Amino acid sequence: MFPFKNNITLERKNNRNLYLQICDQIIGFIKSGQLPPSAKLPSSRKLSEDLNVHRKTIIAAYDELIAQGWVETLPAKGTYIKSSLPVIKQQSFGKNSLQTNSKTKSNFSFIHRPHLIRKEQKIDSLELRIDDGVPDNRLAPIEEIAKTYRNITKRAYYTKLLGYDSIYGNLELRKTLVNYLNETRGLNISLNNILITRGTQMGMYLAGQLLLNDTTNRIIVGTTNYMTSDNTFTEAGGIIERVPVDENGLDTNVIENICERKKIKAIYVTSHHHHPTTVTLSAKRRMHLLQLAKKYNFAIIEDDYDYDFHYSNSPILPLASNDNYGNVIYIGGFTKIIAPAMRIGYMIAPKDFIDEAARLRCIIDRQGDMILEQTMARMIISGDIQRHSKKALKIYKTRRDLFCALLKEKLGNYFDFQIPKGGMAVWVLLNKKYNWDTVISKAQLLNIEFNAEWKRYDNDNSGHNGIRFGFASLNEEEIHEIIHRLTKVMKSINC
Amino acid sequence: MFPFKNNITLERKNNRNLYLQICDQIIGFIKSGQLPPSAKLPSSRKLSEDLNVHRKTIIAAYDELIAQGWVETLPAKGTYIKSSLPVIKQQSFGKNSLQTNSKTKSNFSFIHRPHLIRKEQKIDSLELRIDDGVPDNRLAPIEEIAKTYRNITKRAYYTKLLGYDSIYGNLELRKTLVNYLNETRGLNISLNNILITRGTQMGMYLAGQLLLNDTTNRIIVGTTNYMTSDNTFTEAGGIIERVPVDENGLDTNVIENICERKKIKAIYVTSHHHHPTTVTLSAKRRMHLLQLAKKYNFAIIEDDYDYDFHYSNSPILPLASNDNYGNVIYIGGFTKIIAPAMRIGYMIAPKDFIDEAARLRCIIDRQGDMILEQTMARMIISGDIQRHSKKALKIYKTRRDLFCALLKEKLGNYFDFQIPKGGMAVWVLLNKKYNWDTVISKAQLLNIEFNAEWKRYDNDNSGHNGIRFGFASLNEEEIHEIIHRLTKVMKSINC
Repeated sequence: MFPFKNNITLERKNNRNLYLQICDQIIGFIKSGQLPPSAKLPSSRKLSEDLNVHRKTIIAAYDELIAQGWVETLPAKGTYIKSSLPVIKQQSFGKNSLQTNSKTKSNFSFIHRPHLIRKEQKIDSLELRIDDGVPDNRLAPIEEIAKTYRNITKRAYYTKLLGYDSIYGNLELRKTLVNYLNETRGLNISLNNILITRGTQMGMYLAGQLLLNDTTNRIIVGTTNYMTSDNTFTEAGGIIERVPVDENGLDTNVIENICERKKIKAIYVTSHHHHPTTVTLSAKRRMHLLQLAKKYNFAIIEDDYDYDFHYSNSPILPLASNDNYGNVIYIGGFTKIIAPAMRIGYMIAPKDFIDEAARLRCIIDRQGDMILEQTMARMIISGDIQRHSKKALKIYKTRRDLFCALLKEKLGNYFDFQIPKGGMAVWVLLNKKYNWDTVISKAQLLNIEFNAEWKRYDNDNSGHNGIRFGFASLNEEEIHEIIHRLTKVMKSINC
Repeated sequence: MFPFKNNITLERKNNRNLYLQICDQIIGFIKSGQLPPSAKLPSSRKLSEDLNVHRKTIIAAYDELIAQGWVETLPAKGTYIKSSLPVIKQQSFGKNSLQTNSKTKSNFSFIHRPHLIRKEQKIDSLELRIDDGVPDNRLAPIEEIAKTYRNITKRAYYTKLLGYDSIYGNLELRKTLVNYLNETRGLNISLNNILITRGTQMGMYLAGQLLLNDTTNRIIVGTTNYMTSDNTFTEAGGIIERVPVDENGLDTNVIENICERKKIKAIYVTSHHHHPTTVTLSAKRRMHLLQLAKKYNFAIIEDDYDYDFHYSNSPILPLASNDNYGNVIYIGGFTKIIAPAMRIGYMIAPKDFIDEAARLRCIIDRQGDMILEQTMARMIISGDIQRHSKKALKIYKTRRDLFCALLKEKLGNYFDFQIPKGGMAVWVLLNKKYNWDTVISKAQLLNIEFNAEWKRYDNDNSGHNGIRFGFASLNEEEIHEIIHRLTKVMKSINC
């Protein structure tokens, strides 16, 4: 008979009940073929002695095996492995078969997508980090958020927030945002025009899927463009057309030429500060673009990721504020105002599109975190968010001025740049005598990490040699230190 | 000259600064063509008198217009509308043009997807609600969650959680879940095999997109099947094949026949309790299914949505626990244990698939809420989650027993059902003399809402006349009341 005694090992510290450990291992023996169909199991008394456990434990294990359909009890005969179980793996041994199974390679096929980001972002591995323009999390009003969050959970009605809720997002947040956006962005929208998303990114993904997963799927973006949006639209099945970007943003005349020749489905624009070069789309081009959208019936995906961060004059109203014909899909969010991890955003568009986007979102992750969405609503109503972004704006302006001054003074010979009117990053062009790879690797030796693969800013290999240099997340001391070390780095490179 | 005095209206209660209100409206007049290119603006003194505001306000407004590129100041001449602005809409009048613009219809095309849910779910509109099997949110440990959440935000390191983090999900939660799932599900996985998702739904969506958005895209599901998964796989481009479901779950022999004839990409199975009929996939068929997956190289998407709720014997280990060849994509989550709004789930699969899924997830919404994920990790480590689900299991068992007893006793003549071994719903077949539409509409008169369109349970129109009847979310009083009213309803129907 099969040597249960030597083959079953019980761990009494293990969270899993003893009888289940026994059960698991016997199932393993059955699956491995060590216990063939119709084999007899030892009596519960015998096995309890072998394993030195209470007999009740064995009985529980056998009951479990019966309940799961592995074994059967024949009256006055004993307990037997069922006769009808196919054997799956001759040479494996119960649990051991699992140990030997390194789950690195799948046994089915799927398409690998080269356009999806290949590299997992390194997190704070080096002392100083240069990002491509993110807020300073140390300033985030996280305490207020947690307090508001907790207060909401204390209310009687919170249970409603725990259930399945509207696929359009938390009602209070939608109402609040409709007013907030109408006031601050000069929009003229109602509840029919808004969908709460998880950050601006989800708005981009939904728009791409709905517009480009289609027979006509051509989308226009800038020659330099936010790499993630390229990936998102490519994933959706879009064909990307690039148009030049100058100091006034996307060249709308080139867009017009393209429209005359081929059917364009959509255009992606970061109108307020073009990503990556930070230039603002001029008033004239904004209106030209809206005219073209009207005439050629394409969608304008307006990504207003840093509307709230404009330093010189107050922000220019988005294209969406003059969308008289229903061409603009306006996406934005709070990740830049609060912190990247606070993934609450919104999509503003004509009702028919919002309805479809909500239905698609419903099968992606059903809905957002209603308590967090309610929290955000409360903080807008209370003015906490506005106060915070006012405060942050001031701090970031100071950091921008310091950073640009030092960059000009200490590194002016190596880097070329314009002072950005807003946003959280400077578009820095490296003198073409130099190569970013060298700079970045030498900077690493001085504990400076460039989180971005710089090549991603050059989607179409124009060789402009530029990267985004985030200043908002660095305090003044860090700015001084980074400029200091970068000066060393540049001096150490001879070309 | 254009009558600014009568056309500009200022709201002093409005949050938007006066100078911006003036600026907005002048831009409106320019866009509407009322103020043609090269038109002269009144002097700041004149306009300040007309509008009865301080002259500084007008100067600020003009500066703003200059900064935004709408107007220009000619030395010693005055301020003029730029000559080069195209006119966009002759007959509209600034802000008014927006009022008249009801954003219901988009001016661009996109494909409407009939497979996406058409109807927004009604929320608690009637007194009593019959769902299709969701937890009772009144039991959710929301206070503990909020407390843990807040404690985490108090730690110094919380700022790390606020930034962009791993696309695989919070590291502490992944580590915790690897141990938790290995112990409770008999899995044998490492950090390479897990991706944190937003509920089980996102796991299903990711799997569908990666597997079915492909040249071979055939997926097998049950004749009765969870409607949302049908929609999710159709959206991904999948072709759905249906196989019979009996008291032992999916008929694996039929699956084998199909595999012999055509290439199958994947199979979707709710092995623990088939949705909607609640039956458990038998041990024999589990092993058969794994053999077929190995032989024909298809993926098994195992949706273990209610593993933690099994009443008679302890749960049967998932297929994933014996996935020796890398065929199983195991998806689960906490929405059933805690509450639907707590959208934290996981995907378990071979590393190569997890890597690709993580990259796709990255462009959908970048990442989850790291603070909430960390919170969940802490609550598993502290045992709060386990204690809660033990407690909930007990309560739900009592409710199941009461519900089934009353249903048999009071409504046995109308409804046919088996007592489910687990889960949160009973599969109730209505005597075919009756029609659910009649029952549901009459129930509404007695303030009972069936949240589901019952037809969705009959994806292939087999006319089984069944629906899922959720009992877990109803306390004993509510169960009594619902059965009482339903008895009235049924008696009132004569056929």
